Amino acid sequence: MSFQHRHLLGIEPLSPADITIILDLAEQYVTLNRSARKHSEALAGLTQINMFFEASTRTQASFELAGKRLGADVMNMAMQSSSLKKGETLIDTALTLNAMHADLLVVRHPHSGAVDLLAQKVNCAVLNAGDGRHEHPTQALLDALTIRRAKGRLHRLNIAICGDIAHSRVARSNILLLGKMENRVRLIGPPTLVPSQFAEFGAEIYDDMREGLNGVDVVMMLRLQKERMDGGFIPSEREYYHRYGLDAEKLACAKPDAIVMHPGPMNRGVEIDGEIADDINRSVIQEQVEMGVAVRMAAMDLLARNLREAPQTVMA
Amino acid sequence: MSFQHRHLLGIEPLSPADITIILDLAEQYVTLNRSARKHSEALAGLTQINMFFEASTRTQASFELAGKRLGADVMNMAMQSSSLKKGETLIDTALTLNAMHADLLVVRHPHSGAVDLLAQKVNCAVLNAGDGRHEHPTQALLDALTIRRAKGRLHRLNIAICGDIAHSRVARSNILLLGKMENRVRLIGPPTLVPSQFAEFGAEIYDDMREGLNGVDVVMMLRLQKERMDGGFIPSEREYYHRYGLDAEKLACAKPDAIVMHPGPMNRGVEIDGEIADDINRSVIQEQVEMGVAVRMAAMDLLARNLREAPQTVMA
Amino acid sequence: MSFQHRHLLGIEPLSPADITIILDLAEQYVTLNRSARKHSEALAGLTQINMFFEASTRTQASFELAGKRLGADVMNMAMQSSSLKKGETLIDTALTLNAMHADLLVVRHPHSGAVDLLAQKVNCAVLNAGDGRHEHPTQALLDALTIRRAKGRLHRLNIAICGDIAHSRVARSNILLLGKMENRVRLIGPPTLVPSQFAEFGAEIYDDMREGLNGVDVVMMLRLQKERMDGGFIPSEREYYHRYGLDAEKLACAKPDAIVMHPGPMNRGVEIDGEIADDINRSVIQEQVEMGVAVRMAAMDLLARNLREAPQTVMA
Repeated sequence: MSFQHRHLLGIEPLSPADITIILDLAEQYVTLNRSARKHSEALAGLTQINMFFEASTRTQASFELAGKRLGADVMNMAMQSSSLKKGETLIDTALTLNAMHADLLVVRHPHSGAVDLLAQKVNCAVLNAGDGRHEHPTQALLDALTIRRAKGRLHRLNIAICGDIAHSRVARSNILLLGKMENRVRLIGPPTLVPSQFAEFGAEIYDDMREGLNGVDVVMMLRLQKERMDGGFIPSEREYYHRYGLDAEKLACAKPDAIVMHPGPMNRGVEIDGEIADDINRSVIQEQVEMGVAVRMAAMDLLARNLREAPQTVMA
Repeated sequence: MSFQHRHLLGIEPLSPADITIILDLAEQYVTLNRSARKHSEALAGLTQINMFFEASTRTQASFELAGKRLGADVMNMAMQSSSLKKGETLIDTALTLNAMHADLLVVRHPHSGAVDLLAQKVNCAVLNAGDGRHEHPTQALLDALTIRRAKGRLHRLNIAICGDIAHSRVARSNILLLGKMENRVRLIGPPTLVPSQFAEFGAEIYDDMREGLNGVDVVMMLRLQKERMDGGFIPSEREYYHRYGLDAEKLACAKPDAIVMHPGPMNRGVEIDGEIADDINRSVIQEQVEMGVAVRMAAMDLLARNLREAPQTVMA
Repeated sequence: MSFQHRHLLGIEPLSPADITIILDLAEQYVTLNRSARKHSEALAGLTQINMFFEASTRTQASFELAGKRLGADVMNMAMQSSSLKKGETLIDTALTLNAMHADLLVVRHPHSGAVDLLAQKVNCAVLNAGDGRHEHPTQALLDALTIRRAKGRLHRLNIAICGDIAHSRVARSNILLLGKMENRVRLIGPPTLVPSQFAEFGAEIYDDMREGLNGVDVVMMLRLQKERMDGGFIPSEREYYHRYGLDAEKLACAKPDAIVMHPGPMNRGVEIDGEIADDINRSVIQEQVEMGVAVRMAAMDLLARNLREAPQTVMA
């Protein structure tokens, strides 16, 4: 069984076996990254281009380091959304990078579906680094690796995802991945931020956080997008923290060995208490960052192997 | 016969033999860039610095990839024109980079002649990546390589350059190169955008596009600088497209196998019809981008050889 | 005797022997940087991250080139001070980079002490690239190397530092280093810019520039921060130049072989006459830039050796 995909556009097209292949290879890169000489030549002679149409310091840094440590020639393009006046321009930009013989194109875009569209137009492998509210597959994969390492398995776990589910591609990719691996997912948040249609993915929905956290193995907090505060979704930071912020008292409802996750960057004191975030017995937030580099190395390595071996026969 | 220049400041100082040497070496890099491992060590141990005083996503990306694929240590400097308060500062900045032992300095600057001035002050090789309305030599070289590959030769061709000639360093460098290689160049555009003094370069001037395109082998469109729209040069986008935009009906005046070129980025529906731009039987626009990386690799490789062999004896 | 530090946070914790070790190794890198192939593998397999919370084209470029020439995987983070809303965020950002397994973190920050704080939270080696008014150790080291090469020694010299001492981390690090190496330091400037407490470092204070320059071996000019012009510190550029700008007449008070230094970027005609800055018999300003890359290579190389050998036993 091998990884047969041409692109990494989302979790949706991946099988459980695909996910396991990525995570297993990522484990090898965790070991490399912890060693004295954290560099391989797996992508030597290949060109990786990072196109971020939305600023994202940490995701871009993670992909950049991943490529450089694998020996790729890595280039960052500063794509400001202001330079995109028309729909065609996105495609023209992608065609330009394709013509420069990019091998791996890492793309973040504010519009859902933009990365899929772009992948149809180019010969290179495309990695989705987050598109609108759609998917953020490497985030879900790094979360999965973190859970698997902490819990010893990635199935039959009770996992709560808390906060602004409705606007979150992180939540969406995680729900898909955790469902495929046969976990039970609970979504916790105010009804304005947790649309009921998510129940169709098999998730249970809670608006009471204590109830939702009851007995879970994993507490996955989401970043609160402050710009949505005044849009009628959320009354105030103080009120939000009171009801949905993770503090010691609410965390006590989860299993005693439950781990705490957050994709970063955190709003301390808004969606999570700073002391819990820093508690090395509960929080795996720093490990998530570490796993991020390893998972991106694994994903790019697998796609590059497919590029080299049989570009025309792999699946989209 | 060998390439004897210390800098690449423009097409003007190059002989036809120089041009042929660059294009022949670029062909080897086209092959490298299409291979599985697109990386050489031709510039290993050398330092390339890109100083762009004007933003240019694609030209800078092309030079950056070219240097990285040749194994150079490549650094981009974010030079905002706002940081340049006085004329001396440009020189001081260049002297600073020179003192850091840059080997190759790639410079774009909004003022004609700024790059030449700078080249007089430094020990390293300087490549002009576009200076004001003066020259953009690597663009003309990549256009020449594209033409030579499509037409099998780079002489005795009829080539039309269409659009805003007056403000275009791309046009100026192309007119110089195509003239040196003994082609017949026609300039097409409204009289406000095609100054009559260009006739002194041996070019024929047309303000009727159908007449100008009649029987040509190559149709080279220029980007319309929209900021000149309201300056009295051009009445409106619609009117401009009607008279000078390349559409199927006007293109029918050229030879049946005429190729269509554009330096990018395109304004689809303003200076060129989107379908023609995408027609793989006529348009070589993506190939121009591909040739751009190869030509820049060739130019930097040749200049680096001269740096190494006899820095003091080569010509300015 | 060997270099035992885990970080390079300032000149203050360094012994005279430490300083000599750095400068001696830097000499080897001067030779490498002047050779045809200016690249080593001293940092191969290590990750260097540059975090500049204040823009600094030349210091960042110098560190970037230093790391690339030593074979490190180098990444620049664009840290805008606007993205830092809270104190914790600086630490969270540093923890994130630490979790990505950075080995060398180069940090510039507008607040004095911020870099020290950050160094306490991470496992990697931290280099201070300038923090507030506190320290800028690599600038003092490059100045020291420049003086040692020009004068043949780095002790028992008379050195004048002229200008805005009060706000200058460059002055502070230089005063510390030159004092440790047993030189006599004079500080020259208007009383508003030369606080009398600097006398406690053993420096003599002058407000008359001719008197202060009398018989010195080295004239070290500082950049005038123009934004302080209207704050009541300085009456006007013209008045300042008249009293404290370095011109031929004032320089005649120094020893006939005195060298002229400036950390750059210069305000020609404000704190220094352009002709003196360019006089290759007196000015070592370009050599300072050259030494900057070499000193940073040496510092990173030494810290990396300590990282590899015994990370847990070295001193903070």
